[in-house]
Amino acid sequence: MRATLMYGAGDVRVENVPDPKLREATDAVVRVLRSCICGSDLWPYGSMPASQEGRRMGHEFLGVVEDVGSQVSGLKPGDVVVAPFVWADNTCDFCAEGLQTSCRHGGQWGAPGVDAGQGEAVRRVGPGRSVTVVGDGAVGLSAVLAAKRLGAERILLMGRHTDRTDLGREFGATDVVAERGEEGIERVRELTGGDGTHAVVECVGTEQSLETALGVVRDGGVVSRLGVSQYTAVPMGFDTLLRNITLTGGAAPARAYIEELLPDVLDGALEPGKVFDRTVSLEDVPDGYRAMADRKALKVLIRP
Amino acid sequence: MRATLMYGAGDVRVENVPDPKLREATDAVVRVLRSCICGSDLWPYGSMPASQEGRRMGHEFLGVVEDVGSQVSGLKPGDVVVAPFVWADNTCDFCAEGLQTSCRHGGQWGAPGVDAGQGEAVRRVGPGRSVTVVGDGAVGLSAVLAAKRLGAERILLMGRHTDRTDLGREFGATDVVAERGEEGIERVRELTGGDGTHAVVECVGTEQSLETALGVVRDGGVVSRLGVSQYTAVPMGFDTLLRNITLTGGAAPARAYIEELLPDVLDGALEPGKVFDRTVSLEDVPDGYRAMADRKALKVLIRP
Repeated sequence: MRATLMYGAGDVRVENVPDPKLREATDAVVRVLRSCICGSDLWPYGSMPASQEGRRMGHEFLGVVEDVGSQVSGLKPGDVVVAPFVWADNTCDFCAEGLQTSCRHGGQWGAPGVDAGQGEAVRRVGPGRSVTVVGDGAVGLSAVLAAKRLGAERILLMGRHTDRTDLGREFGATDVVAERGEEGIERVRELTGGDGTHAVVECVGTEQSLETALGVVRDGGVVSRLGVSQYTAVPMGFDTLLRNITLTGGAAPARAYIEELLPDVLDGALEPGKVFDRTVSLEDVPDGYRAMADRKALKVLIRP
Repeated sequence: MRATLMYGAGDVRVENVPDPKLREATDAVVRVLRSCICGSDLWPYGSMPASQEGRRMGHEFLGVVEDVGSQVSGLKPGDVVVAPFVWADNTCDFCAEGLQTSCRHGGQWGAPGVDAGQGEAVRRVGPGRSVTVVGDGAVGLSAVLAAKRLGAERILLMGRHTDRTDLGREFGATDVVAERGEEGIERVRELTGGDGTHAVVECVGTEQSLETALGVVRDGGVVSRLGVSQYTAVPMGFDTLLRNITLTGGAAPARAYIEELLPDVLDGALEPGKVFDRTVSLEDVPDGYRAMADRKALKVLIRP
């Protein structure tokens, strides 16, 4: 079969690889119907050292079950399935807690990349609360959608791409802040009577965006980090200690939200699919990467 | 009156200062009956640059009201009062949320030091949960007491001073881990089936103790920082993002817990006072500092 491999920064190729087969009794083989390029794939696309072997890419997909092992229950050939970005057994104690990302028998699809979806991001968000979303990429816009769903009264979206922030307004953003860094922090504080917002969802992953998040959060508030961290340390010393700031978030256990959220997506009450603004064939995946890296596409859908 | 001033590292003096007077209609003058040397006072005691003016010390005290301004309600001369380590109006929106440490009209007693008390530390701790407390000082031992009160099933205390960890066992610790650093992390993981504990209370404030805390927390768990931070950044990058670790805590809004906890202290159900192992007169305060800094005293009570 054909598949996408990354051989280094900017070097994405579509090549022949062995067809998948059942290896363990708990395996299933799934034919991919649609997949996506994730914003997190752009980090290795920008910085991966050259590799002889290449790395199999893709951790967001849906497909149809073609074959299942003898110990697989709850799935049969012909079923359409959707994959959260890590696989999990959904039966161990971590899975039972809704933390499938730490499943005792789970793992990552192909590459060690991790994305973040809606839900986890903003579970602390509640009716009447205010939220700032830092970043206007697909994760940031989904965070706006999630904050709206959870009843946030005020949703400030920080981003500079007007086509994206326009979609953000459609998703529920009440204010858009185009300024960045210190100026952005001042603007959010100005819009919130000097206090900042109860929750902040950091959807970029750089040190600067995290500093912005800590700068716009209200005393006693929560910063949730969803952006795949490009930093190794968080600038939280005495000031944030005194202000009782909480830092939370991480790899969203997307599996935990499927039962609740998927029906709303299927009946159209939630339309996260609006973030897709380009569709490519499998052979055109390298173009898809380029378009996302150049900010010409917000989120790319792959139709194999 | 006599009062304690710090002029630099290791330089504590008791001197004459002006008597306090009502300045604003919302002021009260309180005669101090008992006060304490706080573990956080040891940080400037170890590192404060020499100063001509000196700094007035002390933010933990109780006393009797001698005089009140015309706008003071709820207090009258003769009342015995206890001071949380910052002052707050207890009426603004932050105070109504129980975050008196961020009071709109509040501030810090004398020095810009901040301590942490029991309560806030471990509010995420619940019945059946496991907790690690990093540090066997007065704050750590109080955290053990608080975890016990909140129903934690297993309380691991990390500390090496047996007189302190013995008191920790009396307060409710189920296990004591004397090892530090990597060895300490391994020991806690060994005691918890490899997982670590649901909550960790960091009661020291150094970068090493924070690393230990992050090393012993279970995936999806919470690290609460109470130790006055001597670090400026927290080592939380991709690993803790993937593990969904939450960092919380800060300056405990001690004022918020008085109504709930003080009655239990007064009737003897809670005995946090056991942490005091030395009492000094006001003139002997410099000796008290030395004893705490040399780890010869756990917590010093001052009887003026």
